[in-house]
Amino acid sequence: MGSPKPGRTRHLGEDELIERIRGTLGGGIGAFGLRDDAAVLEVPGGGPLVVSVDSVVAGVHVDLALCSPADVGWKALMGALSDLAAMGARPLGALVALCVPGAGGDGELALGVMEGVAEASGASGCPVVGGDVSAAGVLVVAVTVMGTADGGEPVGRAGARDGDAVLVTGPCGGSAAGLRKGGGEAYRRPVARLREGAAARVAGAHAMIDVSDGLALDLHRLADESGVGFVLESVPVAEDATRDEALGGGEDYELVMAVGEPDLGALMDGFEAAGLRRPWRIGTVVADAGVRVLAGEELGRLGWQHSIG
Amino acid sequence: MGSPKPGRTRHLGEDELIERIRGTLGGGIGAFGLRDDAAVLEVPGGGPLVVSVDSVVAGVHVDLALCSPADVGWKALMGALSDLAAMGARPLGALVALCVPGAGGDGELALGVMEGVAEASGASGCPVVGGDVSAAGVLVVAVTVMGTADGGEPVGRAGARDGDAVLVTGPCGGSAAGLRKGGGEAYRRPVARLREGAAARVAGAHAMIDVSDGLALDLHRLADESGVGFVLESVPVAEDATRDEALGGGEDYELVMAVGEPDLGALMDGFEAAGLRRPWRIGTVVADAGVRVLAGEELGRLGWQHSIG
Repeated sequence: MGSPKPGRTRHLGEDELIERIRGTLGGGIGAFGLRDDAAVLEVPGGGPLVVSVDSVVAGVHVDLALCSPADVGWKALMGALSDLAAMGARPLGALVALCVPGAGGDGELALGVMEGVAEASGASGCPVVGGDVSAAGVLVVAVTVMGTADGGEPVGRAGARDGDAVLVTGPCGGSAAGLRKGGGEAYRRPVARLREGAAARVAGAHAMIDVSDGLALDLHRLADESGVGFVLESVPVAEDATRDEALGGGEDYELVMAVGEPDLGALMDGFEAAGLRRPWRIGTVVADAGVRVLAGEELGRLGWQHSIG
Repeated sequence: MGSPKPGRTRHLGEDELIERIRGTLGGGIGAFGLRDDAAVLEVPGGGPLVVSVDSVVAGVHVDLALCSPADVGWKALMGALSDLAAMGARPLGALVALCVPGAGGDGELALGVMEGVAEASGASGCPVVGGDVSAAGVLVVAVTVMGTADGGEPVGRAGARDGDAVLVTGPCGGSAAGLRKGGGEAYRRPVARLREGAAARVAGAHAMIDVSDGLALDLHRLADESGVGFVLESVPVAEDATRDEALGGGEDYELVMAVGEPDLGALMDGFEAAGLRRPWRIGTVVADAGVRVLAGEELGRLGWQHSIG
């Protein structure tokens, strides 16, 4: 199941609410919009631009007893960048909307958060081009990122095909294990797999998603959008993590990808040439969308869906 | 001055905090970033893209006793779009990060907000291309907008020159008057002056800013960035509004612009040809940055600066 996170309840699932929001917006949402990790915006004379927004809310996504303000800023930018990674996009810039509690102090919290944002900006090569700061009852960091597929096609969630290999860029569960143990690098300073995502795109990956809510849940989402099933043999578990944490812990930001068998060799070579760790093969895509198994047993939608309302 | 808004206090001014955040980010912020209403992002093979983010926080920027959830969504998108208007940019798309309180209910608040976002999207021609929804202790709507100057130069705040005419697109104070009276269209459903901004850019306006925090404060900001002063004769006051509300009320989203005398005729013609109301001339830019007067008296920095921390 994955370790519960602060503020976790189960009224209306995030996926269900997003479905209903899609209905509200009607034709306003493009085919790609809200269905993939990022949206694709056509820019006159340029583009396509790959864009995404991601929020970190204190007490919901992050525990301020375990994270410094700079950790929160780092996590916010990296979490948003992970959505670009999952599309195989290179970041061009970020906008940061910061809400900080209004009681006492002098903006030190805001500045601490922005220091972590600046560190993640340096580590990822994504400049912060603008932002907005507001007083609020709770700390919220909403980060919008914009990127480019450098003339290629962004990789969505819907392209997985029968017979594709299912790969993951690294062991999962490290972030959840860190949270359980009261901190730890994987929880406080996750890293978006930007270079891995770009390498997978170049090698022709059919579909990708990042492990933001849990390997199992995110793989189900990819399979849902692709209209396929999957058969997994095993999954790599991070050091110190449990199997449940690997499947349902989330915030690992490893990438899960569906790759055609004929492209596997080129993909592995591409990763190696770029100095990247070779991804793990964890299973195979099957045509029957009702088949979702790990080691012979049905795989539940393990992961984190915070409730709304 | 202007009517106080909920949650308004004065610890650390927003402008001061933004200055310090600039310091934190160091070279990460471009010359345009955070100094204008929107940032400019160079897109390979395209662009420049004009981008901005703006947050609406319940209890700080908006009073839920006076606004429906749909009003909040409308105000959030229009407020963000006003920053594009102030750069003379045409919107291409928006991303919405929504945080909604987690206690009780079933997401109806989120859906209500998104209905207002959808209405503003339709009214402005700006599609919502993606978003993110989170549980939080407070309602926050952070909207990122992306736009284009259609091959032209986006208009910043820094270009005002000695002798320029100072114009405003309409009477101010209507939003503050609406708030004082417990609602009203100008408060609940402000409209971004997108067509006016584009017409002013085409006519060669030297500098622009939108009236988001107060005509006086926003004009001071434009003058600060341009290193100039101004001499105003009078300002147009919205029906039912007081002079203080016109100067310090904010959220009117009228545009203030500095336009060279030789371009004034073409600008007025351009507005008329586009079916737009002719802007009011309220004064003149002067070289001495220490001169900031209205009707012969020094004009204070009237407007809304919410405090942080």
